Amino acid sequence: MGQFMGHVLPGIFFTLFGLWWSVKYSLKHISRTQKKNSYIQRNFKHVEITEGAVKVVLGLVGILGEQFVPDGPHFYLYRGQPRSWVKLMNWQHSTMYLFLLISGAVDIITYSTTLMPLGMDRFMLGIALFVEGFVFHYHISLRPMLDQHIHAMLLTAIFAAVATCFIQVFVHDNVILDLFLVCLALLHGTWLWQIGFVLYPPWGEPEWDLNDHSNLMFISMCFCWHFALAILITAVNYTLKAAGDWRYSCKIPTFEQDLTYEASFLI
Amino acid sequence: MGQFMGHVLPGIFFTLFGLWWSVKYSLKHISRTQKKNSYIQRNFKHVEITEGAVKVVLGLVGILGEQFVPDGPHFYLYRGQPRSWVKLMNWQHSTMYLFLLISGAVDIITYSTTLMPLGMDRFMLGIALFVEGFVFHYHISLRPMLDQHIHAMLLTAIFAAVATCFIQVFVHDNVILDLFLVCLALLHGTWLWQIGFVLYPPWGEPEWDLNDHSNLMFISMCFCWHFALAILITAVNYTLKAAGDWRYSCKIPTFEQDLTYEASFLI
Amino acid sequence: MGQFMGHVLPGIFFTLFGLWWSVKYSLKHISRTQKKNSYIQRNFKHVEITEGAVKVVLGLVGILGEQFVPDGPHFYLYRGQPRSWVKLMNWQHSTMYLFLLISGAVDIITYSTTLMPLGMDRFMLGIALFVEGFVFHYHISLRPMLDQHIHAMLLTAIFAAVATCFIQVFVHDNVILDLFLVCLALLHGTWLWQIGFVLYPPWGEPEWDLNDHSNLMFISMCFCWHFALAILITAVNYTLKAAGDWRYSCKIPTFEQDLTYEASFLI
Amino acid sequence: MGQFMGHVLPGIFFTLFGLWWSVKYSLKHISRTQKKNSYIQRNFKHVEITEGAVKVVLGLVGILGEQFVPDGPHFYLYRGQPRSWVKLMNWQHSTMYLFLLISGAVDIITYSTTLMPLGMDRFMLGIALFVEGFVFHYHISLRPMLDQHIHAMLLTAIFAAVATCFIQVFVHDNVILDLFLVCLALLHGTWLWQIGFVLYPPWGEPEWDLNDHSNLMFISMCFCWHFALAILITAVNYTLKAAGDWRYSCKIPTFEQDLTYEASFLI
Repeated sequence: MGQFMGHVLPGIFFTLFGLWWSVKYSLKHISRTQKKNSYIQRNFKHVEITEGAVKVVLGLVGILGEQFVPDGPHFYLYRGQPRSWVKLMNWQHSTMYLFLLISGAVDIITYSTTLMPLGMDRFMLGIALFVEGFVFHYHISLRPMLDQHIHAMLLTAIFAAVATCFIQVFVHDNVILDLFLVCLALLHGTWLWQIGFVLYPPWGEPEWDLNDHSNLMFISMCFCWHFALAILITAVNYTLKAAGDWRYSCKIPTFEQDLTYEASFLI
Repeated sequence: MGQFMGHVLPGIFFTLFGLWWSVKYSLKHISRTQKKNSYIQRNFKHVEITEGAVKVVLGLVGILGEQFVPDGPHFYLYRGQPRSWVKLMNWQHSTMYLFLLISGAVDIITYSTTLMPLGMDRFMLGIALFVEGFVFHYHISLRPMLDQHIHAMLLTAIFAAVATCFIQVFVHDNVILDLFLVCLALLHGTWLWQIGFVLYPPWGEPEWDLNDHSNLMFISMCFCWHFALAILITAVNYTLKAAGDWRYSCKIPTFEQDLTYEASFLI
Repeated sequence: MGQFMGHVLPGIFFTLFGLWWSVKYSLKHISRTQKKNSYIQRNFKHVEITEGAVKVVLGLVGILGEQFVPDGPHFYLYRGQPRSWVKLMNWQHSTMYLFLLISGAVDIITYSTTLMPLGMDRFMLGIALFVEGFVFHYHISLRPMLDQHIHAMLLTAIFAAVATCFIQVFVHDNVILDLFLVCLALLHGTWLWQIGFVLYPPWGEPEWDLNDHSNLMFISMCFCWHFALAILITAVNYTLKAAGDWRYSCKIPTFEQDLTYEASFLI
Repeated sequence: MGQFMGHVLPGIFFTLFGLWWSVKYSLKHISRTQKKNSYIQRNFKHVEITEGAVKVVLGLVGILGEQFVPDGPHFYLYRGQPRSWVKLMNWQHSTMYLFLLISGAVDIITYSTTLMPLGMDRFMLGIALFVEGFVFHYHISLRPMLDQHIHAMLLTAIFAAVATCFIQVFVHDNVILDLFLVCLALLHGTWLWQIGFVLYPPWGEPEWDLNDHSNLMFISMCFCWHFALAILITAVNYTLKAAGDWRYSCKIPTFEQDLTYEASFLI
């Protein structure tokens, strides 16, 4: 994986997940508070199973992609005499994808059977995120100051998400926690973009001095701006859904209006 | 912002907020336990919305003030060749005020609509305080020992307040947590004064040796004294209101007494 | 305060408190589960108020003692030209005693009025312990390795007690938390003795090499032994009370037996 | 204790405990949800008491073994002139076994009497694990980088288990927490094997460069793989029991089938 694309691609992935979640949780909580749309409520189970399946597929694609890119390890772990590790970076990414896959599988089992209680899906998502943060933490320990710092910001977002998931094991359907997780997913995504553009600028040589303290000060501040942006996106999405719901509830819908309304959730 | 005034002004702001909260929460909990004064209880919603509006205005004033003071950045982020950051300190303060503004806006929405559940206002207050602490933390990393230490004390108060806010998302109307937050707001304010007087004494050159270990020992102790003072102020305010409430409940009030009583809350 | 006595005296104080608590909480929980002895149950309020008064008196004695011992600061904070702090160590101990005093005062108010909810006494005890740990933490930062380490063990016990107190604000009358706090009080006491004997041996010059790593390993292990001892003392006390209660419940007591039984609690 | 066996033997012990727990908790939660097998449910009390007895015996054997192996301390703590500590490593292991013994004793008392509330067994298990982690933490502070790192991974697993036990004091019979503890027990066991094979390879001289950063990166990743394996083993065991339970519930069992079914739990 090229260094720039290696940060931007997962960044796109997390941003899309965040946007999708901002729609899903807005719908879920608004339909629940209004005690209408039981049709939507019933369908959430299928939505969760589909989401789990998407995570399993993404996990598999990620593992195979990391292993079989031209300069990947092709499932060799060590090689040569004296033995040395082969492409540990790709192996680490594969490990992260493995836990994404496990998390997806647990999602499917939680929502399609009665084997596991509600909350297990959240617990395993927390574990998957913890593994991501855990591997990252030892990934960056010998890098220059700004590189460490910009990744430390990412770790802050990741461990906040881990904590949120673990609280959700005990506190179900709390709209505050759900929306916070949405914000953190968006932040995770946009921050990966930021890392890509700062450390591996696509338009030529690195322009950032990795040991300048003022860059470090800017980066901590910039992280807060990303978070403010994530809050804004989540709030706008939530408000739009709430407004749509309110407009809908003001009139007795005809069948065509009803259809249009349901269809609007897919857009 | 002059360094001394830059600490004393927000110090006054936090102290006033703390004093106001010590009145608000005393009234709230005493009127609730006595199951009287439903008049006051009903008005709390309007009080919270007004408080939110004040926070929005203060946030805006803070951002614009930091940007447009004579030596401010005037919304320029970088400048020159090679590029260098413009007045990062002012930008960091603007970022803190931005989250104060967001917290105020969420207060207004939480109490004036049914879009968001109770607790969201506390959550966003916690986030705003976290951002303050987060930016501060990277703000002070290259300063002399006493400077770092005196700000570390501030961070202790800030993160204690963050933790309290996050607990309040789940535990509503707990008088212990409310009064603790009042104490921390007062402590936050008086400690900013202390920082101003220690690091930037208004009457001439700095007299404190920033690398003397005994100064550091004194400062940790002094922080505890500020906290004891904050507890005292909160306790006195709470007791006064409780005593007033008790005196009031002992007699059948005439209309004039009633008026005087209500007016007394404004003083 | 002589260094040896300065550790042994508060050690005796905490050990006595721990022993007294092991009796109090054993009685409280055993009488509650058996739904007998409502006589004892009703008296707990007076016991708590008395305990608060003892803490207030001890706090006052502590503050005055630290200030007016022959080589104490006599309430002078700084002195000389250039100004230097006077006896910061005594001032720090006075600060700790101040919070003990506040905690005692809150105990009295909580149990003798309806102004404050249950749990406030625990919260303020937690704050008092936190202040002790907080001041200690900056107290020891420039000492030799073993000195720092042996105090770090103390901090572990103190912060565990702080955490327990804060949980007790929300979880009342949990026997596990109460007995854990008893253990930590005993541990706090016996460990202060250990510190006194290791760092300031009363029988002549210090025999411990403060920079020997094997001493450090022994001390961490020794701390666990103290904890095991504290568990043993608590368990024996709890079992004795439970056995006494059981023997008592097996027969219809005569008035004399009843008197003897009540008297036995005082021993 | 030889260094290799010293890691592999407790490793086997924890793995066996983990496997046994994966069976026990699967049975417990599946039988509970189906509201059948009350026979099994009633027997859990005896199972817990037996488990406690096993822990007491193992603890005793461990203490005596560590003391009386040929090069053990034979209960001498210090010796010689100048005094030096005798075999502190064995004493530390003895301390860990002592808390295992205490935890076992508390298990027995919790389940065989009404003296202690449910949750006390979990609390003491948490304390025993905390002591293990606490002693370990100071055990490894002067070792080479990889040695420290590989033990730090172990500490992560231990303190996660401590946190889980402490949550279980308040949240009983939560299947997610129970299964997580099973995973951590298995991880604890297999990771001790890993430590033995990395630091003290039984087939000759150590091949691992203890200061190579890429080894450190591999080890963090390898730890995640062990965890994934522990999740797999737990999931398979849980699914097998659930499937067996489901097959059982589909037919009216004859007496022989019933016997076979019960017997299958022992395998």
